[in-house]
Amino acid sequence: MRLGPGAEFDVIRSMLGDDTELPAGVLVGPGDDCAVLESGDSPWAVTVDMSIEGVHFRRDWLASHEIGWRSAAVALSDLAAVAAEPVALLVSLALPPEDARASTGPGLQRGIAEAGTSVGARIVGGDVTTAPGPLTLDLVAIGRVRRPLLRDGGCVGDELWVTGFLGGAGAAVATWERGGEPSAAHRQAFARPEPRVKEAQWLFGTGRVHALIDLSDGLAGDAGHIATASGCRALLSGSRVPVADGVEDVTGGAAAALRLALSAGDDYELCVAAEPGALGPLREEFQERFHLPLTRVGRLEDGEGVTLEGDESGPIPLEGGFNHFERQLR
Amino acid sequence: MRLGPGAEFDVIRSMLGDDTELPAGVLVGPGDDCAVLESGDSPWAVTVDMSIEGVHFRRDWLASHEIGWRSAAVALSDLAAVAAEPVALLVSLALPPEDARASTGPGLQRGIAEAGTSVGARIVGGDVTTAPGPLTLDLVAIGRVRRPLLRDGGCVGDELWVTGFLGGAGAAVATWERGGEPSAAHRQAFARPEPRVKEAQWLFGTGRVHALIDLSDGLAGDAGHIATASGCRALLSGSRVPVADGVEDVTGGAAAALRLALSAGDDYELCVAAEPGALGPLREEFQERFHLPLTRVGRLEDGEGVTLEGDESGPIPLEGGFNHFERQLR
Repeated sequence: MRLGPGAEFDVIRSMLGDDTELPAGVLVGPGDDCAVLESGDSPWAVTVDMSIEGVHFRRDWLASHEIGWRSAAVALSDLAAVAAEPVALLVSLALPPEDARASTGPGLQRGIAEAGTSVGARIVGGDVTTAPGPLTLDLVAIGRVRRPLLRDGGCVGDELWVTGFLGGAGAAVATWERGGEPSAAHRQAFARPEPRVKEAQWLFGTGRVHALIDLSDGLAGDAGHIATASGCRALLSGSRVPVADGVEDVTGGAAAALRLALSAGDDYELCVAAEPGALGPLREEFQERFHLPLTRVGRLEDGEGVTLEGDESGPIPLEGGFNHFERQLR
Repeated sequence: MRLGPGAEFDVIRSMLGDDTELPAGVLVGPGDDCAVLESGDSPWAVTVDMSIEGVHFRRDWLASHEIGWRSAAVALSDLAAVAAEPVALLVSLALPPEDARASTGPGLQRGIAEAGTSVGARIVGGDVTTAPGPLTLDLVAIGRVRRPLLRDGGCVGDELWVTGFLGGAGAAVATWERGGEPSAAHRQAFARPEPRVKEAQWLFGTGRVHALIDLSDGLAGDAGHIATASGCRALLSGSRVPVADGVEDVTGGAAAALRLALSAGDDYELCVAAEPGALGPLREEFQERFHLPLTRVGRLEDGEGVTLEGDESGPIPLEGGFNHFERQLR
């Protein structure tokens, strides 16, 4: 599988070396959201996600149980991203000394357990240590998957669709970063993202979805991952992107709101590449079932990269979404 | 499964709550070295281990590739601890910004890949981020296991045996901590521990080993974990503990060397509870095959806890081994 551009992928690429052959029993390896392990007609999907204080969350933004929920939801979202059904969580926890005897641990536990339970997963193990800081959670999410829906199945002509509204979590971060207090809805989007597990299984069940990813790097970045893995170009239509209510008030304008919705990496909605014409007729059923919009935001074309089709100025090449390295280093 | 005493287990216990029922498909859950997932006659074992700069290693002690090797070996040792055969590694990495564009990443990768390859595992995925620090590695090790050899199978009367020599890695840490330079052998024990994968499979193959653990908390602590899980008391014979060469020079005496060998948590040798009389006749075969001693160090008895049988002063109750919380907080 081809990987997208960016400093993070360079490091992963260097980690994988040139060794692209998978070990026996491993059905899916580097480059997708989960590793997939053979197990009869119901393989296991395994993924790991690290959440670090000061990088992925701040203590003055979130309560302990919200930190726990968010950290687990982010890992569980990777299971949704291959249409797997969550079963179990392993929790690695590095607690700063002052937390080791405070109520932080139980709060984190409650949030992790609640996020797991919300999609059918239970904590089955873990590793706890103290560290000089920052608070670090690493969550292993384990699920079962009949046939994993990967990033690389997109075809030229496929429509790109997203679940939910985008930019709410990013607007919460932007508000906090300038000392404000986000709206309840934006705060909720960041503090308590819902892993779209049932939505992913429903989309898989249509039999007409070719590629799936969760939005951890922002729509522009993640549509780019689908495009790169599928050997296509993603063309996004700016006017179609379902920007969350109130993001415009935070960014001070529609163009900046769209930019945030495309680049903020904290939404954990799903993006799929589907057979042309397949999801349109099913849109209302999806919305009724999940109380969540399903929106066509673009398509896959010949070429490479991600392009934004604006209403006025024609296509604009995009740089990709949220990037931990860029954010830290600039 | 019952868990041993200590602050770390208190946090894990609080994380698990009262929910002891395992999810469908999970054969082994909280309390052992790995979670075990059903998969026909060859289940998957999954474990996660976090290694943090300043807690588990220091940069002025180890080169990047040694940090990588050690972090992977510690996770792979958990697979050995259930007699699993390693297959794959997932790598979560939090790099401080100054490392993100330096040679740290490739060095870590090389060490991780080498440790994996040494026991048949390959990197199949991961997650990379930057963090303000410290350098943090979280390794998910995945293997296959016919019938996991757990901590809780020990019986009253069983002999306790350990592989290799103990205290070398702890002596390296003690030497570094007082500003010295450890001997090559002690340094090697800390920087490049060998996961005892083949040794564990051989011991499993005897059919006469009832319980198995790897020495991550020190012999006293880990024999205590076997004892607690098995509902027994561990009686260790001080004069039998195979203290590594040169530890006495570091600690300045035999009693302190024994204490270090019992409590230092960095050896990653194996401890087993075996049927009485079973391993004695096989000891030489083991030593010839693995170039490693196999030593009887005690037995399981009625009761609870861990007791050290000294040559002079009679049994001394032990407090358990290395504990990240105690070490940090005292």
